Amino acid sequence: MEREKYSLKDFGFNLEMNFVDRADYFQDYIHQLDDSKHRAYLAEATTGIGSTMTVRDIYTREPRKVISFVANDYLGMSKHPQTIAAGIEALKKYGTGACAAPIIGGFLEEHRLLEREIAEFIGQEDAMIFSSGYGTNTGVLGCLLGKKDIALTDTFVHMSVTEGLSNTNVKTIGHNDLDYLEMTLKKVQDEYITKLVIIDGAYSQDGDIALIPEILQMCRKYGAFLMVDDAHGIGVFGETGRGVIEHYEILGQVDIVTGTLSKSFGSVGGFVGASKNIIRYIKWYAKSSIFSAAITPQATASSREALRIMKADPSYREKLWKNVAYLKKCLLESGFDIKNTVSPIFPIMVRDNYKVKKIAAMLLRSGIYAVGICYPAVSRKDARIRASVLATHEFGDLDNLVHSLVKIDRALNFRQ
Amino acid sequence: MEREKYSLKDFGFNLEMNFVDRADYFQDYIHQLDDSKHRAYLAEATTGIGSTMTVRDIYTREPRKVISFVANDYLGMSKHPQTIAAGIEALKKYGTGACAAPIIGGFLEEHRLLEREIAEFIGQEDAMIFSSGYGTNTGVLGCLLGKKDIALTDTFVHMSVTEGLSNTNVKTIGHNDLDYLEMTLKKVQDEYITKLVIIDGAYSQDGDIALIPEILQMCRKYGAFLMVDDAHGIGVFGETGRGVIEHYEILGQVDIVTGTLSKSFGSVGGFVGASKNIIRYIKWYAKSSIFSAAITPQATASSREALRIMKADPSYREKLWKNVAYLKKCLLESGFDIKNTVSPIFPIMVRDNYKVKKIAAMLLRSGIYAVGICYPAVSRKDARIRASVLATHEFGDLDNLVHSLVKIDRALNFRQ
Repeated sequence: MEREKYSLKDFGFNLEMNFVDRADYFQDYIHQLDDSKHRAYLAEATTGIGSTMTVRDIYTREPRKVISFVANDYLGMSKHPQTIAAGIEALKKYGTGACAAPIIGGFLEEHRLLEREIAEFIGQEDAMIFSSGYGTNTGVLGCLLGKKDIALTDTFVHMSVTEGLSNTNVKTIGHNDLDYLEMTLKKVQDEYITKLVIIDGAYSQDGDIALIPEILQMCRKYGAFLMVDDAHGIGVFGETGRGVIEHYEILGQVDIVTGTLSKSFGSVGGFVGASKNIIRYIKWYAKSSIFSAAITPQATASSREALRIMKADPSYREKLWKNVAYLKKCLLESGFDIKNTVSPIFPIMVRDNYKVKKIAAMLLRSGIYAVGICYPAVSRKDARIRASVLATHEFGDLDNLVHSLVKIDRALNFRQ
Repeated sequence: MEREKYSLKDFGFNLEMNFVDRADYFQDYIHQLDDSKHRAYLAEATTGIGSTMTVRDIYTREPRKVISFVANDYLGMSKHPQTIAAGIEALKKYGTGACAAPIIGGFLEEHRLLEREIAEFIGQEDAMIFSSGYGTNTGVLGCLLGKKDIALTDTFVHMSVTEGLSNTNVKTIGHNDLDYLEMTLKKVQDEYITKLVIIDGAYSQDGDIALIPEILQMCRKYGAFLMVDDAHGIGVFGETGRGVIEHYEILGQVDIVTGTLSKSFGSVGGFVGASKNIIRYIKWYAKSSIFSAAITPQATASSREALRIMKADPSYREKLWKNVAYLKKCLLESGFDIKNTVSPIFPIMVRDNYKVKKIAAMLLRSGIYAVGICYPAVSRKDARIRASVLATHEFGDLDNLVHSLVKIDRALNFRQ
């Protein structure tokens, strides 16, 4: 089988080129993808995202209706008539943007209400919203940890966590590896002022969840704090949808919880929940908030409405979990390696940077939109197709995905 | 006169405390502000922002209608019926969010259209949008500059530029200081692969503009590239509103231009314009884009409509500049120090971290909303009230600001 000459990794920082030459050179990568018609990234949708959407073919630009697994809009809130109506109301009342940082004029009543409602929902004393989920982690961590502190991070935390740690000390603690965590905690306990363990609730690439109770207990034992980024868990896990922390019945016990408004909430933005004092501190010091225009009235109001629906009506979550169980059964029965996922995120392992792009391109041509995840999101040997299941999928959509994968596997032989 | 015991600087990173203790200690600062009823930050608006708005008193929580100078919505686009209508259409068509990163499914036709229109507007070959202006600078710089490169930054570039430079070498070049820039360029020219000079078009705190033609010429002479963050200039400066670069009649000559959608465009988000190859490179490597949900359909569509209006109808810009000229005349005649502003941003210099908060609080009580800017946005000796003039202000609003300042000056004596 023909192989790719380059992977995306070959075009990184360390070349002895200025950025213009580097950008020129990078076009080789695109040309290589195009030679085999494998480009599926940055496909353009002519509809909004959802369980079905219309996407232009990268090469012909023909629009095609596809069954889609790319969105993290787990409960379908981005298309819910009531979240749209709430957004329209806010646009009419407040205008199209807040046009100032929250601290110097851009803080709207709508923002305060969402902050209060989120705090209550995730069981924290107070909460704060940001215009971006990525900026939430970078802003929060940037102002909480300094040169004398240390962050102990799970191997699979999100890039935004890593980026937020450029001014502090960092050690990775493996993935859900309690022995290694304990060893590390022992080692650092007297060396740093703040020890902050940072984990996800549900992991974005493998779909597994953190051993939060055990990790929390260990943090307490060794004088460390715990931060859980539950971007993929809130709205999905737990008896009442409050996330992986509720799933473990330890709501309110984690020191810092972050999350996003672009997944179960269906909009864009992020939030952090913690004690009143910490939230106030972050409000005055998080650079991505104090030097950045506030989140739009629309995203805020639509998120508030999404939260109201999540709390009032469990049927979206129930439908989601029915879909998750069904797809899991079908994929396992068909012999695909989906690692240890217990969430709506399905990693369909390919473990080959070249094949994964070919598979994604073939899926798209057969009417299935699911992206290939490879470097830098995961290491090259962990390349996979990632499918996010939504409450708005029908079983038929899921059958379709599995049948297409089986068919492609006959040609490419990637099943384990 | 009573003085403050602490400034915000006293609560920074380097204390020998963990973040919980640090956050607890920080409450002293708030209590100190509250003792003298000086807190004016994070005031909550019950209307959208604009030339007038309704803001709750920090202490009584009573809503009060005020004339406001806090928004950067220079052309009033956030409240324009057509930008609101465009936002509503997009909400109905695409939903409340894009709920995936652009590269893996969240890229909508609406995004591509705005990118194309911005590229054309700012005279660059191509452009890319981000969900946050802050994330634009951090994302762009993070992927363009590495360990063997160097950024030469004006002293007054935005915090987002500084944050984007954590993985490269940085030297500041003073402010609009051509001699020092030349000296620095000579010194570094053979030491680094990429030399990137980074300046603003219009500076956000002093309201002055960069000497772009001279700086550009010097970059060319010494083999450096030039990036201009024209967040406050685009929509405002230039014959047709294309920014400070158009003002100098050198559109298309700057290597990289960044800007924001939260000022003249009235929404939230940011953009970068450059060559096609560089934009493509950024689309594949900028972490704040590839690991972050795309900008909402509403902000995108509202920004497109704002751009259409900016191009079709110069009356907003003309009204803005009439207001700028009028306020400048009034403030100078009244003897206030407004530094070298030539833009809608008016720094009304106080040069005292304590007084500036008192003045802001007194202004708010007299029905004028203008924030005090102090550390960390500017150094403590550069504390000032900042007033942003909008096209939607009336001369009477501006008179009101000046009269209030004169009256407060009688008590506090801050005029130079």
